[in-house]
Amino acid sequence: MAVSPDFLRQLAAAAAAETLPRFRAHGNVENKKTCGFDPVTEADRGAEMAIRAIIRETFPEHGIIGEEFGVENPDAENVWVIDPIDGTRAFITGLPVWGTLAGLVTGGRAVAGFMSQPFTGEFYFSDGNSSHYEGRDGASRIWTRKTRNLADATILTTTPALYAGEKREQYDRLERACRLARYGTDCYAFAMLASGFADVVCETGLNSYDIVALIPIIEQAGGLVTTWDGGRAENGGDVLAAATSELHEKALKTING
Amino acid sequence: MAVSPDFLRQLAAAAAAETLPRFRAHGNVENKKTCGFDPVTEADRGAEMAIRAIIRETFPEHGIIGEEFGVENPDAENVWVIDPIDGTRAFITGLPVWGTLAGLVTGGRAVAGFMSQPFTGEFYFSDGNSSHYEGRDGASRIWTRKTRNLADATILTTTPALYAGEKREQYDRLERACRLARYGTDCYAFAMLASGFADVVCETGLNSYDIVALIPIIEQAGGLVTTWDGGRAENGGDVLAAATSELHEKALKTING
Repeated sequence: MAVSPDFLRQLAAAAAAETLPRFRAHGNVENKKTCGFDPVTEADRGAEMAIRAIIRETFPEHGIIGEEFGVENPDAENVWVIDPIDGTRAFITGLPVWGTLAGLVTGGRAVAGFMSQPFTGEFYFSDGNSSHYEGRDGASRIWTRKTRNLADATILTTTPALYAGEKREQYDRLERACRLARYGTDCYAFAMLASGFADVVCETGLNSYDIVALIPIIEQAGGLVTTWDGGRAENGGDVLAAATSELHEKALKTING
Repeated sequence: MAVSPDFLRQLAAAAAAETLPRFRAHGNVENKKTCGFDPVTEADRGAEMAIRAIIRETFPEHGIIGEEFGVENPDAENVWVIDPIDGTRAFITGLPVWGTLAGLVTGGRAVAGFMSQPFTGEFYFSDGNSSHYEGRDGASRIWTRKTRNLADATILTTTPALYAGEKREQYDRLERACRLARYGTDCYAFAMLASGFADVVCETGLNSYDIVALIPIIEQAGGLVTTWDGGRAENGGDVLAAATSELHEKALKTING
């Protein structure tokens, strides 16, 4: 189904009311896992609760999957997938490259969604037909750029340190084939790809809620996003996005040797 | 000498008028070096010219050193050091973690300066006495946080790929001793350190114009910044900044084995 941009804006605004006052506020940081470092702030929980409440009110028959509060009615035809703060490490470090993600999966396929960065005032969304940017500097339809060769491509990834064992070799091979690499971007990377400022985004070990909202934004801007084996990325895993189908094919071949 | 915050704001505004309209505008990118990738945009040149013009008009006896247009009167008692766009790779990738830097060196020592990020509306500055933040969310004096142990520290660096040979081992040793590492931040990292959101910033091969503006912002916020051998950082090189003297000493020891 197509989704009204106003509904997406409403979700983003409700989340921003929870996240923005706590960004750079030295708020509580809990450790979600018993080992390792996976901070969850009050902002994370508050934003997901706010988004869930609006979806329940507006579309009571829809399912909801979220990072913080699990699964409701997952077998519904329409399921919303939420990451209230993608990039919690950026968030706690004061860096404005985190985002709030919510996407709609219809019949197993991501069809619409948004990425909101409330500190910079950026809002990237797909309404089911096309992809758009809204910010303090205006609003526009967005498109990927027409890069066809890895040698001309800018690649983004959160950090090479996330790729374990052979996957690190696969990623490094892809990075070496590209012109320029930048790290540290989380969901922001996919927004830059969709709006024509980067060409390849590679990530490993994503969850469904890390990518569902971004798939339609990329696809409806002219780009491709799949798993490393070329399948649909709605369930997360190792994910590769590219600005054009030709570039995507070359990147997949490079990853897979 | 102390510097009026209004003068720093004037420099930042003049630079922003050149950079901001060209950010994400798919502008011209030249290759400054014959090999490698070192983009310079019209924004870079325009911003430095604008800053130089104001300094010449206001302080005709001061020297100026800038990334784009070289050296004027470098033996003056007061010398301004300018990087019109620190983080040109972030700039061309659409990422709002670049900044405009200008700092004042008096008698060989960096005493005041600013980092401006006009897309996010952030302005970090030192007036010669204290360090401050101004943004869309308000204004405040800034301080580093009181982290004393590497095991509690967030470390930032632009990318580990910049450290060559033994320096990569030195950096990796430091990163492993820290709790959390984030990449991709350029000058933005030092602003996060000065305002209490990160604890250690490590960089290699900096130029004078990459660091001069940031030294007083860090020092007057309670932090330390030196070269890897513990000397003053005004001339750039391999640079280490930390939130407290105790943390700085531990980080230096870890780097130097």
